[in-house]
Amino acid sequence: MRFNVSADLTYDFAAPCEVLLLLEAADGGDQAVREERLAMSTQPRITRLDDLETGERRIAFIASDTVQIQYEARVEVADRDTALAGAPAATLEQLPPGALRHLRPSRYCPSDRFERFVNREFNGSVGGDRVVALLEWIAAHVDYVSGVSDAATTALDTFVDRSGVCRDFTHLAISLCRASQIPARAVSAYGWQLDPPDMHAVLEVYVGGKWRLADPTGKVRPEGLVRVATGRDAADIAFMSIFGQAQLINQSFAIEQID
Amino acid sequence: MRFNVSADLTYDFAAPCEVLLLLEAADGGDQAVREERLAMSTQPRITRLDDLETGERRIAFIASDTVQIQYEARVEVADRDTALAGAPAATLEQLPPGALRHLRPSRYCPSDRFERFVNREFNGSVGGDRVVALLEWIAAHVDYVSGVSDAATTALDTFVDRSGVCRDFTHLAISLCRASQIPARAVSAYGWQLDPPDMHAVLEVYVGGKWRLADPTGKVRPEGLVRVATGRDAADIAFMSIFGQAQLINQSFAIEQID
Amino acid sequence: MRFNVSADLTYDFAAPCEVLLLLEAADGGDQAVREERLAMSTQPRITRLDDLETGERRIAFIASDTVQIQYEARVEVADRDTALAGAPAATLEQLPPGALRHLRPSRYCPSDRFERFVNREFNGSVGGDRVVALLEWIAAHVDYVSGVSDAATTALDTFVDRSGVCRDFTHLAISLCRASQIPARAVSAYGWQLDPPDMHAVLEVYVGGKWRLADPTGKVRPEGLVRVATGRDAADIAFMSIFGQAQLINQSFAIEQID
Amino acid sequence: MRFNVSADLTYDFAAPCEVLLLLEAADGGDQAVREERLAMSTQPRITRLDDLETGERRIAFIASDTVQIQYEARVEVADRDTALAGAPAATLEQLPPGALRHLRPSRYCPSDRFERFVNREFNGSVGGDRVVALLEWIAAHVDYVSGVSDAATTALDTFVDRSGVCRDFTHLAISLCRASQIPARAVSAYGWQLDPPDMHAVLEVYVGGKWRLADPTGKVRPEGLVRVATGRDAADIAFMSIFGQAQLINQSFAIEQID
Repeated sequence: MRFNVSADLTYDFAAPCEVLLLLEAADGGDQAVREERLAMSTQPRITRLDDLETGERRIAFIASDTVQIQYEARVEVADRDTALAGAPAATLEQLPPGALRHLRPSRYCPSDRFERFVNREFNGSVGGDRVVALLEWIAAHVDYVSGVSDAATTALDTFVDRSGVCRDFTHLAISLCRASQIPARAVSAYGWQLDPPDMHAVLEVYVGGKWRLADPTGKVRPEGLVRVATGRDAADIAFMSIFGQAQLINQSFAIEQID
Repeated sequence: MRFNVSADLTYDFAAPCEVLLLLEAADGGDQAVREERLAMSTQPRITRLDDLETGERRIAFIASDTVQIQYEARVEVADRDTALAGAPAATLEQLPPGALRHLRPSRYCPSDRFERFVNREFNGSVGGDRVVALLEWIAAHVDYVSGVSDAATTALDTFVDRSGVCRDFTHLAISLCRASQIPARAVSAYGWQLDPPDMHAVLEVYVGGKWRLADPTGKVRPEGLVRVATGRDAADIAFMSIFGQAQLINQSFAIEQID
Repeated sequence: MRFNVSADLTYDFAAPCEVLLLLEAADGGDQAVREERLAMSTQPRITRLDDLETGERRIAFIASDTVQIQYEARVEVADRDTALAGAPAATLEQLPPGALRHLRPSRYCPSDRFERFVNREFNGSVGGDRVVALLEWIAAHVDYVSGVSDAATTALDTFVDRSGVCRDFTHLAISLCRASQIPARAVSAYGWQLDPPDMHAVLEVYVGGKWRLADPTGKVRPEGLVRVATGRDAADIAFMSIFGQAQLINQSFAIEQID
Repeated sequence: MRFNVSADLTYDFAAPCEVLLLLEAADGGDQAVREERLAMSTQPRITRLDDLETGERRIAFIASDTVQIQYEARVEVADRDTALAGAPAATLEQLPPGALRHLRPSRYCPSDRFERFVNREFNGSVGGDRVVALLEWIAAHVDYVSGVSDAATTALDTFVDRSGVCRDFTHLAISLCRASQIPARAVSAYGWQLDPPDMHAVLEVYVGGKWRLADPTGKVRPEGLVRVATGRDAADIAFMSIFGQAQLINQSFAIEQID
């Protein structure tokens, strides 16, 4: 499938400060960026800090005063094999480089706390079947509710509160996968037909010999996801990290399918 | 300086399970392994999963029954520049590959929670001077006490409880550095003259154009540290990760200087 | 001093549910209610559940549809001895009935976590002098900031985050007092000259043979406080507890001095 | 039923400090103390701080050096109506004095966090039937395991970790009841046939017009419980509160049925 994605962000910076932007569609693997444009209302010197391993693209610059950032891209997403059922678990030696860290707990995914829970409740399944069971459990036990969580909310909170948004669903799913010894990582993405449009958070699990995307909220089909950043959890994939103070003036995201 | 380091571990495994071992001295950068021996009482097939970026060396194998692991190495540690005072902070574009993730919060280092604290209390200093100020604050406000913390203890806990062991001191130091926008990571190490001998946890900060080791407990001088693993926090550098159940029978570590 | 206090609350109740209201000025001890009026737009059967020990007054009723509650009272506050400096600590046997529970940790005041901190930092002072030292520490280290805390925020959070509102300041002050073995409890009050007007949260400590009011935010002088409810922490003194779902339409509080 | 209960405690106090002891069998309500003896190896002046509302008995004294405390009592426990099934919930106006506070969250029972969970999972039941459903859920989902919890463990931790001891089971049960708007409080008790013998923690819920005892671990039948202290959670019912430092030398508890 092919998509046009776009973002339009405006922030006010009282004092100059460094900004890291993870907004551009990833280029590589199962998706290719065909055409794109990144424009800023000011003309800061931009440093590219792209990551070759994941295709994640990042820029750093010094922001000051009012900055408007506009991004547009045409992206082609290949047919993805996101089938989970029956996909075997990987042994440590079968893991690709960099996967080891996605077995471990992180800021918002304290997977070490969920080991007894997953062993007790999902004992019969392994690999992709385990992931399916975990995602079904989340869908049945957690409500999608805006405004109940914030930037400090962890998967442990969401497990107790039984409510949250895409970020929280993703953190809980990652935690339960890692507690099951299945590598899982967070992915930010433009999500086709997500309503209202926003930067979406989903997860990727390593089973059946590859990383496979899944949306624990069920709101976006895997083939409708245009990947942006990849990391351990939301701490790694924020589309904008501001190393100072700024005020949000406006932000919007859009994605459309092309023919 | 040159050191002989050794470790002797025995565990009982009721059922076969995967084990990841991060026990060997890192090879590369400011230290070189001159000679070494890794012996196991059983003869499992061993998979090496070494990390070229950090020199961290890892093996994975299937453990079963009683397993004794013996490791010995002769390691040469180069003169290290661990001077912090006056070392300038790095901008994002000056960071080496992989440093970005060490600016972000992690499982045991929720640095996002400490931003107001560091801004309020250490406002006057930046870069290496800031690190010096943070380490002095920790030394003045936190007691080294065994038995008050456990595997779930975070830097937030230690900040409140005002007590902990090397792991806790390291997590707090890392958190305060990252909240100060200084990359900081956890390092496990054989620590010369550490009493009692044990695997030690310290941190590394990126200031003045390089990663610089520091021991927030003040127990080991930087030149007496033989590095093993490197990661975001203790979740990444455990010397033994057991993907199943095991019982500790015995473990000991030793390090001696060779003239 | 004499005050007119008033409150005006309107809520929408989708379904009938029980409501507990702790809104009326306490009557007894150092303040006397001279005249008052409590009116509701609906005419539910009201059950009084007043507490004779503290003078706290409570009503329970079944709310449904839109309910407007209007309260007005003329209250005389006696000269209060709120002097802390030099006030001796009480031994267990000197405590008044009901004070014991205010030595213990509670939902938002996990005082057990602060024992090492207070012993380390305030070792030289006891009784009222200790309270003065704790309040000065809070004033010097915590910023009054709206919007950084919520209904789940504990004193531990505030101690780390270094920011909060009156409720958070009060929880931290209570926690540090209890960790110092000084009974401390939460009090809701109409606060004279509080800007903007709101229901205020302060604390009371038992030193020098009596309960003494203090406002850790420094916003209201003790003689300007018209006490309402008393409890272990905010969990006990909410002016409205709704045992079901309701939507806030409007709420306002006012207090004026009468010559 | 009639029981002999006894306790034998020895502690070392490096410096004199106040001690509060909640060790004696409660006298009143559904149990009567027929004969008892409390002996201490030193002869401190003892202050009684008994609570008439609950029959809880407390003594305070100054401890120094080595103190051995021996307690023995013969207690008669009346037939208790602990039936939960079908017992109706109480409205606020039906609550006995002091019950209101047992609807609210406390240090170890953050019941405010469990409201969505209980509403989602136990929607069909109220009153005593709700309590039965909650206790069955706990029995089915939490493992009794020693050593996984400590003095800081809350019901939220236990809900996630799915393991704990009697104190943890009790905190979780209390939290789920309060989240269901059912008053619930913690009770310490000598527990007949508890193996190994220890001071036990159970809960009491207010349904069907009275407080009813229940043991969420299922280890002791309600008629085999000799009540000691009553409070919001473990913070209130510790059998020994030491306002200073002490070292445990020995402690043991026993209970025997008398024909």
